[in-house]
Amino acid sequence: MEIKEEVRKVKLSAPLLAGMSEEKRNHALQAVAEALISAKEEIFAANAQDMEQAEKDGIAAPVLKRLKFDEGKLHDVTEGIRDLIRLKDPLFQTQLARELDEGLTLYRVTCPIGVIGVIFEARPDALVQISALCIKSGNCVILKGGSEAIRTNKILFQIIHRAVAEAGLPEHSMMLLEARSEITELLECDGYVDLLIPRGSNQFVQYIMNHTRIPVMGHADGICHIYVDKAADIQKAIPIILDAKTQYVSACNTVETLLIHEEIAEKLLPELGKALKEHGVELRGSKAVQELTGCVEATEEDNRKEYLDYIVSARTVKNIREAVDHINYYGSHHTDCIITEDAQAAEEFMMLVDSAGVYQNCSTRFADGYRYGFGAEVGISTGKLHARGPVGLEGLVSYKYKLFGNGQIVGDYASGKKTFHFKDLPLED
Amino acid sequence: MEIKEEVRKVKLSAPLLAGMSEEKRNHALQAVAEALISAKEEIFAANAQDMEQAEKDGIAAPVLKRLKFDEGKLHDVTEGIRDLIRLKDPLFQTQLARELDEGLTLYRVTCPIGVIGVIFEARPDALVQISALCIKSGNCVILKGGSEAIRTNKILFQIIHRAVAEAGLPEHSMMLLEARSEITELLECDGYVDLLIPRGSNQFVQYIMNHTRIPVMGHADGICHIYVDKAADIQKAIPIILDAKTQYVSACNTVETLLIHEEIAEKLLPELGKALKEHGVELRGSKAVQELTGCVEATEEDNRKEYLDYIVSARTVKNIREAVDHINYYGSHHTDCIITEDAQAAEEFMMLVDSAGVYQNCSTRFADGYRYGFGAEVGISTGKLHARGPVGLEGLVSYKYKLFGNGQIVGDYASGKKTFHFKDLPLED
Repeated sequence: MEIKEEVRKVKLSAPLLAGMSEEKRNHALQAVAEALISAKEEIFAANAQDMEQAEKDGIAAPVLKRLKFDEGKLHDVTEGIRDLIRLKDPLFQTQLARELDEGLTLYRVTCPIGVIGVIFEARPDALVQISALCIKSGNCVILKGGSEAIRTNKILFQIIHRAVAEAGLPEHSMMLLEARSEITELLECDGYVDLLIPRGSNQFVQYIMNHTRIPVMGHADGICHIYVDKAADIQKAIPIILDAKTQYVSACNTVETLLIHEEIAEKLLPELGKALKEHGVELRGSKAVQELTGCVEATEEDNRKEYLDYIVSARTVKNIREAVDHINYYGSHHTDCIITEDAQAAEEFMMLVDSAGVYQNCSTRFADGYRYGFGAEVGISTGKLHARGPVGLEGLVSYKYKLFGNGQIVGDYASGKKTFHFKDLPLED
Repeated sequence: MEIKEEVRKVKLSAPLLAGMSEEKRNHALQAVAEALISAKEEIFAANAQDMEQAEKDGIAAPVLKRLKFDEGKLHDVTEGIRDLIRLKDPLFQTQLARELDEGLTLYRVTCPIGVIGVIFEARPDALVQISALCIKSGNCVILKGGSEAIRTNKILFQIIHRAVAEAGLPEHSMMLLEARSEITELLECDGYVDLLIPRGSNQFVQYIMNHTRIPVMGHADGICHIYVDKAADIQKAIPIILDAKTQYVSACNTVETLLIHEEIAEKLLPELGKALKEHGVELRGSKAVQELTGCVEATEEDNRKEYLDYIVSARTVKNIREAVDHINYYGSHHTDCIITEDAQAAEEFMMLVDSAGVYQNCSTRFADGYRYGFGAEVGISTGKLHARGPVGLEGLVSYKYKLFGNGQIVGDYASGKKTFHFKDLPLED
């Protein structure tokens, strides 16, 4: 109940933050970067406590690595903020300017979404990135980070919040949730929260989607495919598959299923099987794949599996269409790749595969806001409404229609006394 | 169960329709227009049966008027189709072209949403408009019209469906539901249907939203406000209010609440009260409004009420901020208007009001796809994700990211062996 009251204050601040000039928002970002650098010893000390506790609790090494907030991470996030300051303002952009009739002019102008709730993993640098993206895009933000980072998040939030308020942005522009139980209360804040972005396991994201009336953006599964076409260059295929599987095995854009054109199977599979083994990857295959590699069997279940581990499944297919059908049926509409030297095959694949990212001859691991040049991302969306794929500043804004008249009424147009003339006006840049 | 199997076929057609050229889609639209004209006698005969039944059932006059499909309506819809053919293709538009590195190029290209289910009122012309918008935007569509129009809808669907299939679009691009019970089955088709657009009563839209996991676009309430500022021109205010209330009383963009600056109340209200009375509108007011007009009392309940009738409520406010707070709290984020000659007051109001349409000095009834020059609309969205306001072709498309490489792997960028250079390429128009 207390949370709901706080969230209501955030909602009331949203129209005020929406009206802040680009200069003010950039000034606040600059102040945040400076404040973080000044308070770095305090941040590192809090992080040392989190790290100590996590080690005591036997947290796995990769999680510890993400939990660590050191000089290098501080440098990265403050540089990220400076990049963000330089990016074009996503707000107040006129997307449409149309004279409907003499003295009746319609504008479509970008505006923030409002209040965004982001629930993210135990990565303190994510708190800074998400806050910065929301400040730049004029959105109020409610943050809930992984509990292992509780001390680091608390101090980071205090520093950022103070800098933002002192720079003249509304005091209730941001809010930090600390207890897991507060998520349940947040999920009930429809009417106050415009968008939820949960990051984390499939199960967690599904839980959020099923327990709130607030719109949710993100992805549950990341079942990415690589289809090796008959016209593939094997010397490209093998390094791409190894990178897509092993470069960061627990990421959503990691490949989980390989589809191999049957005409190239004999040439590719023995060599690929060997390479996967050398990299510690377990291969599970259909009959044809087993015969060529001696691997274990892949079941129907494997088609739907996001391993997040050193495991990959492989099947042969008769043609592109069979590969496309498999991907559209079993996939998660995240990122799927074709390896081929045949431009027409690539075009067909990219047209028919219904995913946010469709690639030719490169690793699925490129599906990431930073690698797309968006500066940072708040998440990756596999939905087709609103933002799709990596979500940066552009995905954090909406628009409103502004109509300026001098007394026009609809009756005059309905009766035919007046008629619309629909004249698009030039957009200033 | 049978419905689900049919819907699955539609889903399988979606990638094929998504790949159809602009020429093919426009050719199909042309064929639809011609087929409708050729079969007009058949259509009018079916409509006569629907009209006869509706009259027997004692259906209200405004509903009968919308149910009627005559020479005039046929002319309007076929002209609408011809306008649509001339509109720029919403598909295959490159929104972003960026070289991430030598030989690694990212494109963001528009594509259809996929399968759209539209549930609409007993208006046969709506079936034609919605079908045409979906053909142009490459979306498969599942149509369910109001039951009073069942015979007209059936023949219209048959004609359109045949023309579309003969023009070479996939046979399962479109589907018609006839029984109300089939809506329940449709709501369970998540995974096959990408978007639902329900049109109709608040209660009906709420029901749809609460009984499906498919994303829903639209609006439940339409509680629109007009705020008469102290700097208003009364000679503009009164005709605008009368038009916004009475031009079409059961529309979602009709005004329901008036907020009057207290400094202009004495000058405006007696005259406004008289004008409303002359137009058969019941005025319900706060104390101050009652004293100046002798109207009945408006309760707290009236603030939340979409009358869809010849009733309007009015309250006085101290300033713009009080008006804005009222609108953001009680409103439905649809369309709200300020009457003022003060440009700065208008700017403040339009910035702070969190609605899809914010107007100055004109009727809220302008909130409509046709009046915005979109040709037609599938609905009006009060959500802030994806399309907002009247939804035309642009709101019916998404995009996908296409990434073309020649063997690039992420490991090389993570290790620092290679770096991104992010060079935006010129967009061809």
